[in-house]
Amino acid sequence: MVRLSIPGVDDLPGQAPAVHEPCPAPISSMPPPAAWRRGSPGVSVLGDLLGIEWPVIQAPMAGVQGSALALAVSNAGGLGSLPCAMLTPEALLKELLALRNGTERPYNVNFFCHRMPPPDAAREAAWRALLSPHLAAYGIDAAAIASGPGRMPFDDTLADVLEAFKPPVVSFHFGLPEPALLARVKGWGAKVLSSATSVDEGLWLQAHGADAVIAQGLEAGGHRGHFLSGDLEVGTHSGLFALLPQMVQALRVPVIAAGGVTDARAAAAARALGAAGVQAGTAYLLCPEATTSAVHRAALQSGAAVSTALTNVFTGRPARSIVNTAMRELGPMNPQAPAFPGATAAMAPLRAAAEALGRSDWSPLWAGQNASGCRAVPAAQITRDIAAAWRPQGIPR
Amino acid sequence: MVRLSIPGVDDLPGQAPAVHEPCPAPISSMPPPAAWRRGSPGVSVLGDLLGIEWPVIQAPMAGVQGSALALAVSNAGGLGSLPCAMLTPEALLKELLALRNGTERPYNVNFFCHRMPPPDAAREAAWRALLSPHLAAYGIDAAAIASGPGRMPFDDTLADVLEAFKPPVVSFHFGLPEPALLARVKGWGAKVLSSATSVDEGLWLQAHGADAVIAQGLEAGGHRGHFLSGDLEVGTHSGLFALLPQMVQALRVPVIAAGGVTDARAAAAARALGAAGVQAGTAYLLCPEATTSAVHRAALQSGAAVSTALTNVFTGRPARSIVNTAMRELGPMNPQAPAFPGATAAMAPLRAAAEALGRSDWSPLWAGQNASGCRAVPAAQITRDIAAAWRPQGIPR
Repeated sequence: MVRLSIPGVDDLPGQAPAVHEPCPAPISSMPPPAAWRRGSPGVSVLGDLLGIEWPVIQAPMAGVQGSALALAVSNAGGLGSLPCAMLTPEALLKELLALRNGTERPYNVNFFCHRMPPPDAAREAAWRALLSPHLAAYGIDAAAIASGPGRMPFDDTLADVLEAFKPPVVSFHFGLPEPALLARVKGWGAKVLSSATSVDEGLWLQAHGADAVIAQGLEAGGHRGHFLSGDLEVGTHSGLFALLPQMVQALRVPVIAAGGVTDARAAAAARALGAAGVQAGTAYLLCPEATTSAVHRAALQSGAAVSTALTNVFTGRPARSIVNTAMRELGPMNPQAPAFPGATAAMAPLRAAAEALGRSDWSPLWAGQNASGCRAVPAAQITRDIAAAWRPQGIPR
Repeated sequence: MVRLSIPGVDDLPGQAPAVHEPCPAPISSMPPPAAWRRGSPGVSVLGDLLGIEWPVIQAPMAGVQGSALALAVSNAGGLGSLPCAMLTPEALLKELLALRNGTERPYNVNFFCHRMPPPDAAREAAWRALLSPHLAAYGIDAAAIASGPGRMPFDDTLADVLEAFKPPVVSFHFGLPEPALLARVKGWGAKVLSSATSVDEGLWLQAHGADAVIAQGLEAGGHRGHFLSGDLEVGTHSGLFALLPQMVQALRVPVIAAGGVTDARAAAAARALGAAGVQAGTAYLLCPEATTSAVHRAALQSGAAVSTALTNVFTGRPARSIVNTAMRELGPMNPQAPAFPGATAAMAPLRAAAEALGRSDWSPLWAGQNASGCRAVPAAQITRDIAAAWRPQGIPR
């Protein structure tokens, strides 16, 4: 077990904290989980389950946001999410401190729970060979690029960091962690969410401890969350109109609608189909609290945003991105891409070089199928606008 | 111009009508189009436009239904549709007579408007070679199979048959016919509908004369209706949750939601997203009025129905079918498949041989992504159930 020093919790005499920036307030001054300021009871089943005012979850989006977006959403009465899949334990600690210092309301921390693939030197070499003309065009030496894991699965080390914070909600992507690890999380009193791309996956998640299930429609941006079927079967994945009612029919836990939910009308439609709440991602991408890159913001506001596709060229797993040069040249699905998350490493310097020139050609431009509603307004406003689907006075016209 | 003898309209002395069965009543006894018994005004904009009581359109489904299903839906206050893409002029005439004799309410006739591809002997030979082991397994001689067009586009010959009937609604798939031909149809007073898979296609249809546009979500069964983009771009097609609100936002003509709409809850969701009406297909497949084959009905009621994909192996164009042997062995998308509608011919004897053994391995099993609501009940009941989304008293719970 890696011991991380958590300021205010276990900083021992003479031991320097592992984080490099001062903590705004010691954790001991934070309310314990039992004292989370809960939202208005009775507005929705999901709100009551998670202790939030409105059943609007901000989708965790690794690479384009951190605690600032999550805080803005949680403080507006929704459920802000911190994407943790690309955070080191030290970075996770720092973000958790920011959350604890920034809100008394529930928040969500999200982890991937894939299994790391065995090294495959031949596949990696083939992938670099495929990329080499593009790397050469930017003057990058393919042989000099370090391999890197890119995204790590949830494990005991990360759970150790979480434990002191007892986060009120923990969500997972690509299934659930192994039972003992999940039991640790549930032992803190955390509510557990995960994404399902099929009714079978929804039933599996319910049977294995999920307190609510996110029905991830094919419209959703970023990584598909499938874990019972293979990457080649994404062609059988359902749009939300078909997936959601079948999931609601089959499950007894609350079902959260994701994929194309950008405003109150979409949330009202999801409610009509039986959703207990919604998860919105793309709608938040232009918010000032998001860290979305300049090239990504530009792509979202361009005509290119109407054309998205599932691609594995950025990470090795199918994920929805605005179609760009990388997807046209290499995919969008390429059987030679190293297994998730291995495809990321060789693309990283290409992406960096292109972005330095203001080009989005080699960047993952994660987006759902409706970017038309993206607005550069504070996340609180997006949250309140979507939440109008649950207001007694209804949706403003 | 091919002259077809239409009983009761132009049967001349001494000329035998081209149809072989007696016509139940002469056309002259039918009300002229201006006297269509119209539905209740004010229920919906689309209902008023099309003269129907409820804005519920039964999707035209070539190969699994004829006039009987259309009549049942129209007489229940929805808009029944006759799929005409696989009908000869003689068969079309017979079905039109059945419609005119069976209802005083508006109905829809649907045509494809693709362009027939030039013959491609090499591609056809390669396709037969690919099929040959499967043909051999059923004792079929690949060389003996006749080529056939399979599905014909709308043309003046078919318009000649239609003209005497002045059908109140005509819908098209794969765009619209050429301007002069479309002008003929609109000259009869027919309202014109067509399907769009993108906002661009919706705008094109509106600009070229469509009175309403069907937003075909990726969930929909059967053929994708795209006509501005290529078959390889179906990976960029949108689920209904994303497509519908963007189409509603961009168009001034009414937008009809299609894809995954199986019941009143789905219709209510479509309304929330701005739809003026819905088009439902899969929901009608088990109705006694449909001619859905036994193997198709069995597949729809089996666990296999949860897995559908877009495939071009049955016709040459991407269409959604329940995944079966043909799709697993040959596709689901196969670049060698002859251009639409050419792929049909070589598969036909294989399909027939398999179906004779009660097997659905080689049949197109068209279905949308939600077959869970398919019920073997009269089409009138399905229509009324979906229409509940427009009833003042709301949807029964």
